[in-house]
Amino acid sequence: MASMAAIFTKTPSNPNISLPKLSKTRFGSSNIIPFSTRNSNPRVRTQLRLQVASQLISPDGGNLVELVVDESLKREKKREAIELPKIKLTKIDLQWIHILSEGWASPLSGFMKENEFLQTLHFNSLRLDDGSFVNMSVPIVLAIDDLVKDQIGESRRVALFDPARDEPVAILNDIQIYKHNKEERVARTWGTTAPGLPYVEETIANAGDWLIGGDLEVLEPIKFNDGLDRFRLSPAQLRKEFLSRDADAVFAFQLRNPVHNGHALLMTDTRRRLLEMGYKNPILLLNPLGGFTKADDVPLHWRMKQHEKVLEDGVLDPETTVVSIFPSPMHYAGPTEVQWHAKARINAGANFYIVGRDPAGMGHPVEKRDLYDADHGKKVLSMAPGLERLNILPFKVAAYDKTQGKMAFFDPSRPQDFQFISGTKMRTLAKNKENPPNGFMCPGGWKVLVEYYDSVASSDNDKIPQAATTAAAVAV
Amino acid sequence: MASMAAIFTKTPSNPNISLPKLSKTRFGSSNIIPFSTRNSNPRVRTQLRLQVASQLISPDGGNLVELVVDESLKREKKREAIELPKIKLTKIDLQWIHILSEGWASPLSGFMKENEFLQTLHFNSLRLDDGSFVNMSVPIVLAIDDLVKDQIGESRRVALFDPARDEPVAILNDIQIYKHNKEERVARTWGTTAPGLPYVEETIANAGDWLIGGDLEVLEPIKFNDGLDRFRLSPAQLRKEFLSRDADAVFAFQLRNPVHNGHALLMTDTRRRLLEMGYKNPILLLNPLGGFTKADDVPLHWRMKQHEKVLEDGVLDPETTVVSIFPSPMHYAGPTEVQWHAKARINAGANFYIVGRDPAGMGHPVEKRDLYDADHGKKVLSMAPGLERLNILPFKVAAYDKTQGKMAFFDPSRPQDFQFISGTKMRTLAKNKENPPNGFMCPGGWKVLVEYYDSVASSDNDKIPQAATTAAAVAV
Repeated sequence: MASMAAIFTKTPSNPNISLPKLSKTRFGSSNIIPFSTRNSNPRVRTQLRLQVASQLISPDGGNLVELVVDESLKREKKREAIELPKIKLTKIDLQWIHILSEGWASPLSGFMKENEFLQTLHFNSLRLDDGSFVNMSVPIVLAIDDLVKDQIGESRRVALFDPARDEPVAILNDIQIYKHNKEERVARTWGTTAPGLPYVEETIANAGDWLIGGDLEVLEPIKFNDGLDRFRLSPAQLRKEFLSRDADAVFAFQLRNPVHNGHALLMTDTRRRLLEMGYKNPILLLNPLGGFTKADDVPLHWRMKQHEKVLEDGVLDPETTVVSIFPSPMHYAGPTEVQWHAKARINAGANFYIVGRDPAGMGHPVEKRDLYDADHGKKVLSMAPGLERLNILPFKVAAYDKTQGKMAFFDPSRPQDFQFISGTKMRTLAKNKENPPNGFMCPGGWKVLVEYYDSVASSDNDKIPQAATTAAAVAV
Repeated sequence: MASMAAIFTKTPSNPNISLPKLSKTRFGSSNIIPFSTRNSNPRVRTQLRLQVASQLISPDGGNLVELVVDESLKREKKREAIELPKIKLTKIDLQWIHILSEGWASPLSGFMKENEFLQTLHFNSLRLDDGSFVNMSVPIVLAIDDLVKDQIGESRRVALFDPARDEPVAILNDIQIYKHNKEERVARTWGTTAPGLPYVEETIANAGDWLIGGDLEVLEPIKFNDGLDRFRLSPAQLRKEFLSRDADAVFAFQLRNPVHNGHALLMTDTRRRLLEMGYKNPILLLNPLGGFTKADDVPLHWRMKQHEKVLEDGVLDPETTVVSIFPSPMHYAGPTEVQWHAKARINAGANFYIVGRDPAGMGHPVEKRDLYDADHGKKVLSMAPGLERLNILPFKVAAYDKTQGKMAFFDPSRPQDFQFISGTKMRTLAKNKENPPNGFMCPGGWKVLVEYYDSVASSDNDKIPQAATTAAAVAV
């Protein structure tokens, strides 16, 4: 998998090139990116670089938030934590601590207090002290029940404990406890309160009636020890990587599905378009979502295997591609969530964001229709407060062109020549160990998918996860 | 009722006085308020005034939108309208046309197109061409069904017809038809999809599956011919009135209930505070909501009668008070709707807005609790995009002080001395022709209330409208 973030350094491109929509990016002292060496990845060049005015987009709020305490303080903070009222985290709480600790949600410095929660629900954005807005569309909150609230009492700090081990992972300071109106949270985030929303069922339905916000001190970098931690590059590490490659544009591609040649076409086509726009070295951030996903999505480690094959097979160019895990849990909240996906990538250094049909969408959990209008995601994204600096690239529909025997952009003048291969179709083929049309996916990648469904079938007594009810030409 | 908008002109106060938060108000050419003389109210001074740099807050978007066609074009436009595909309006659609036509929703120039609808649902605000935001929290949309959509066909314009008479009232130009996802609209606007929301039941549940947006040309000023039109001052007329009174601050009080002495205390206390802040002539805009309300609210004409008595009894000073109807329908959408109530008053010239406990709230239609957290309204209002120029005045809780025999601000050090008289309690007393504690409401105003409930009881075979499940110290 080493090729996934292979290092490729070119002669620095002209930093004064005229770049569309980069005029709003602030340069100067407030834009110096505080690179952390804490989590430094051995594959990332560590030699000193001259800090020239960076071409990378500045993080939301001007500085990348990093919440892991200094190594020298770790022992002391752990001792403090043991003495504090204790909150036992869920697995998904821990995923959010990971997100917060690395600054994907900059400028958030911890779980939301009520003012941030309300702004998120009502405005999908947070107002900064200078009057400007940053985008923030999904609540990043920590729920507690009455009992835990009582145990906290008058304390101003609490310790957050790992769900698996009896170990503190963080301290939450200057806490605020406020009511968790679940119905309102769900309605305003998903635009429905229908039963069966995966994230709601998993994390909200049975959660406590209180939310606790505060400032996080994370005791050490969050690791999952699943063999994939090396692919969990933080925004600081990603920015360092992009700079080391002399990227003058970074375009992010969010996905939670196996990569097929339609995706690859979009990514290579985007790079071509960026080169045409005058960029010298656009770098692709292929950033699969690594947190909670619903039961019928392909699990992360199988997807990472599949992505590896795609790079090995040369479908994507390792020299201009960084594959790294985006550690967020998935909400399946459509137009609301796609803003979060985009905003987090600004913090990771991306100034271009590829958005597809029905991003972060799913079938309505009760009715026989898509939950969201397939076009709303890109429309909402293009109008969202706080995302003005991000260039949104809506992508063209790709489908299997039977005349060429490969994935191609759909040509509405000859619809009969195209075959749309939905997620459902793809899963059915893989499950039955059939091959998709030649050119749909690289053979190595397809093999991984077949293996995955094989493993599910054998481990699960032939029960295949239920296929999603909706079909997209290109599901991302 | 002439005293309700009695004219009182003082020597002009110093226009250069230092005013809190007015620094953001733009002066100069973009701030010239296009006063209309179309709807001119005979009670409003019509002599020419020197257009000095106004102290009034500028309307959202810089100019007050007015959508009634010039008198000279009326006949021609009517002829055009007759030839166009026809949409029959509901009573509430007509209320929105009234709102739009007078610029309460400036800079909206008609029913929302999809981009405006989506921004309203997701961001409670609209982005202007210059990148700034105006607040817009409730969708102002027109629903049509499949049949009407088919009838419209390829036409770019439609005529909107009065529900009562077979007469066109407006033309909608440059139309856009898009899907009306009712569930999503309701969830994002109300934060619940529970059955029994009054506005939803009345206007959305049985509405068509399409929304039609476009630019309005209203054929003549909307009149309701209910004896109250003279109290329906437009934002332009209100601004003229405030200027004629040399107002240097305008504070708006939104209400949909009878005025009791707790309200009066708040209003007079607000004026006192504004005078202390250095304003020379703060004018109160007492602006009762006049559109759709739920069945158990006191109807508009009874409320206006009651307000008249309150002024006659000298509870409020007619010289510094303008009573005028705010013609919007009521959503009962709490923190979402209070933004609309505030934003519309900016357009009417108010730069201060009084906000109470649980504004625009109601009991949850299904569960035994308030639908909204009572504090969220003022919190959301204070953070809302596009309302930065408006000074929000959260009000202190007023209750009946038994030791003083009058309404007073609640003193938490002696709770036993105070009696909270809820809306339910007030209704029960009035229904039973009992008197409230002396000093709760002026006798003339109380008499009107008793008469109203008497009329309901006799006309409705003794069935009193069901009391709301929630009680507020001061319901506005």
